[in-house]
Amino acid sequence: MDTPDIQQIVQSLEGRNAPSSVAEVHPADIAAALLDLDVGARRLILALLSDAKAAQVLSEADDRTQEELLELLDLPRLTRLVIEMDPDDAVDLLENLPEQTRGAVMGHLDEETRRDVDMLGGYEPESAGGIMTSEVVAVGSNETVGSAMTKLASAEQPEVMGEAFVLDPAGTLVGFVDLKSLLNAQPEDPVATVMDPDVVSIEASADQEEAARLVDRYNLPSLPVVDPAGRLKGVITADDIIDVLAEEASEDMLRLAGTGVVHPTSERILVRLRARAPWLSVTLAGTFLAGMLIEYVEATWFDGGSSGGSNGANEDFKALLYFIPLVGGMAGNVGSQSSTIMVRGFATGEVDPKRPMRVLPGEIIIALFIGLLAGVLAGLAAMVWHEDRAWIGLVVGTALPCAILVAAFAGTLVPFACNLVKVDPAYASGPFLLTLNDIAAYLIYFAVALGLMRALGVG
Amino acid sequence: MDTPDIQQIVQSLEGRNAPSSVAEVHPADIAAALLDLDVGARRLILALLSDAKAAQVLSEADDRTQEELLELLDLPRLTRLVIEMDPDDAVDLLENLPEQTRGAVMGHLDEETRRDVDMLGGYEPESAGGIMTSEVVAVGSNETVGSAMTKLASAEQPEVMGEAFVLDPAGTLVGFVDLKSLLNAQPEDPVATVMDPDVVSIEASADQEEAARLVDRYNLPSLPVVDPAGRLKGVITADDIIDVLAEEASEDMLRLAGTGVVHPTSERILVRLRARAPWLSVTLAGTFLAGMLIEYVEATWFDGGSSGGSNGANEDFKALLYFIPLVGGMAGNVGSQSSTIMVRGFATGEVDPKRPMRVLPGEIIIALFIGLLAGVLAGLAAMVWHEDRAWIGLVVGTALPCAILVAAFAGTLVPFACNLVKVDPAYASGPFLLTLNDIAAYLIYFAVALGLMRALGVG
Repeated sequence: MDTPDIQQIVQSLEGRNAPSSVAEVHPADIAAALLDLDVGARRLILALLSDAKAAQVLSEADDRTQEELLELLDLPRLTRLVIEMDPDDAVDLLENLPEQTRGAVMGHLDEETRRDVDMLGGYEPESAGGIMTSEVVAVGSNETVGSAMTKLASAEQPEVMGEAFVLDPAGTLVGFVDLKSLLNAQPEDPVATVMDPDVVSIEASADQEEAARLVDRYNLPSLPVVDPAGRLKGVITADDIIDVLAEEASEDMLRLAGTGVVHPTSERILVRLRARAPWLSVTLAGTFLAGMLIEYVEATWFDGGSSGGSNGANEDFKALLYFIPLVGGMAGNVGSQSSTIMVRGFATGEVDPKRPMRVLPGEIIIALFIGLLAGVLAGLAAMVWHEDRAWIGLVVGTALPCAILVAAFAGTLVPFACNLVKVDPAYASGPFLLTLNDIAAYLIYFAVALGLMRALGVG
Repeated sequence: MDTPDIQQIVQSLEGRNAPSSVAEVHPADIAAALLDLDVGARRLILALLSDAKAAQVLSEADDRTQEELLELLDLPRLTRLVIEMDPDDAVDLLENLPEQTRGAVMGHLDEETRRDVDMLGGYEPESAGGIMTSEVVAVGSNETVGSAMTKLASAEQPEVMGEAFVLDPAGTLVGFVDLKSLLNAQPEDPVATVMDPDVVSIEASADQEEAARLVDRYNLPSLPVVDPAGRLKGVITADDIIDVLAEEASEDMLRLAGTGVVHPTSERILVRLRARAPWLSVTLAGTFLAGMLIEYVEATWFDGGSSGGSNGANEDFKALLYFIPLVGGMAGNVGSQSSTIMVRGFATGEVDPKRPMRVLPGEIIIALFIGLLAGVLAGLAAMVWHEDRAWIGLVVGTALPCAILVAAFAGTLVPFACNLVKVDPAYASGPFLLTLNDIAAYLIYFAVALGLMRALGVG
């Protein structure tokens, strides 16, 4: 690579925080900038960074970018970076490595790092133990204030600033001391006399949501994590909780819209498709069933004058109506998925409200897949159901992908348009968009029906 | 009040955190316990608490409980509590007071508190200035490390522990120092030589979401807030951000389900009804329009053999079908509102997953109101639309409230049932519940239609 490329990379980095060189850019900003760069540029940036900085950048990168970056590193540097990382981030990174590489890296780690990684890696990822860091300042209850101060002063990466946890000789958590109490005591005072024994803690096996609730409820700057015997194992900080709460909110919001958690800018199409398709099949089956139910009602109680073939248009129309719940439901559901993914993406910062073209193509491809699959399934089922009116399968199979495509289009772009005119995209993406997609779906359905019926000479 | 009542109150408090007396219970737990107590018990608890503790309890209480507690306090105590509170909490509390009382309290505040309250109250509630606290440890850049330590040691309520912000003589934020740098420096060193000049700050007028994004992205324990000239005004801590993120997630999630932010356990029915009704009217109008569209298609292209009155049952059936989008859409929407409110309530801790009866009655009353209102509106509109088949208005007007009621019932209870069997309520409350409510709504609709048609002798 030659000089102009370096210029371009530094420019792309500078745009984010106006620093004078790559080394001065915040690791989170470098990680975000790497998203847009190609392999060559990424390799160059990694080479420019110190091990400490590169370790931070890796920690800040999303899973997919991290995996891609890992492929650019040789084993010696990878090992150095893992040693530089916070142990909790190192565990996450090691999980992203192929098993063989992981083993090789583990073999080169120093004793302390390996022990930390083994311990942290043993917890469920969504437990308190899984999100804690093992780097915590702990002092014995019979140590002095002066000694506690010295420990705080020499702590390598104090994630919890100005706070130390107090342990009894068995390693059991018995209290905490904050900076203020330490500064106001005499250096020779025992820590036990100045500590606060009312310390809220959580067991390592508890769910991360429980940890979030404790931190939120008691406004804790940090939450110590203990084993069943009460021995201190690590600490969870408020910024870990911010991540947990964001993750849980994403999960709830997206699941309510009938999709797993998807990352529209950093995840492969196939992964996103798999997260969305299963719940759509619930809608597909349910609304098909609803149509059959409506026909059953008609056949049982309203089958007044349709005997004989005299009233074909009427019968055709009724048969078409049985697919109204299906067409409206599927279009509505796909549209809700897209709009919810956008609204959540704006909130987490994953989707840039100024760059719709970064997500639209993916949403359209997914909608196309879903539409074609649903169209074929529903179309065939419609042919079986209405065997004397097989053309209806063709109508459903053609109209469904079109309606789904339009709904995904609207579901993706309406939130962006709302941002542009300063309307809350969540408001507009709710019932308003759903109703709009419903009506659009019916229009498309009948237009396709009339067109195809004319073309096929039926009805 | 006599002794048994005190016993009962203390017991009800003890159940939450096993403390030995009210004074030792965490303010957040007392605030939660007060939710369930009557006026007499609340008055007693408030009397038992020190001013400092009572101030914390008031700060932790939700808006409605706070309003109710404020009515139990006389002016002198109220003033003392406001002075004890963090200035940002005091501002929120003052906004909950009737204007006259607010004026009286403000008149009794000391100069410093009044200045803080005036300053903080001047910012938009959802801006960085609106969520910051003015209590921040600031040191001059030409002060010494020893002097900074003394300031940190004597800070009254250091929300940001172990961190001080550094200002130049004009009051402009130029850096920050953390405990570690201070402890590792000599007391006589100037602060300017040990501070970190790379300090991320935000302007007071910026949106709170922007503050949340900065804290989240850079994992900041605190974010200093400045005026347009860069002068330090206050600080936002990670726990403020946790509240902001929770609030924003609630807003997005509930708005996507077509409701404003509602608090099902702490808000009056009428307030919740007002948050939910407007968006339902969008669904009502939209699905009514969809029905008219379908009829237009029929009348224009399929009106084959329905001339004359020979085929009444058929025409009746088709007329009924035009309301399928409306009945399904309304039931689905009300059900989504209820289930989303429950799922979000579980996540924020507002709704206790073990106590469905605490929210079910409210949801049912709201659904009843909405159902009757929608039923009357849609019923009358249906009568006008189908003037030759006025009974259809009666069918729609009867079936709609029933379907909405069943949907609210399912929307409220399915999430609780999921918790019971350890299924994620968000999963089950999405497309699954929507489809179920759709089918239930159709069944109810046709059952009402057949019943009423028989009773009225029509069709």
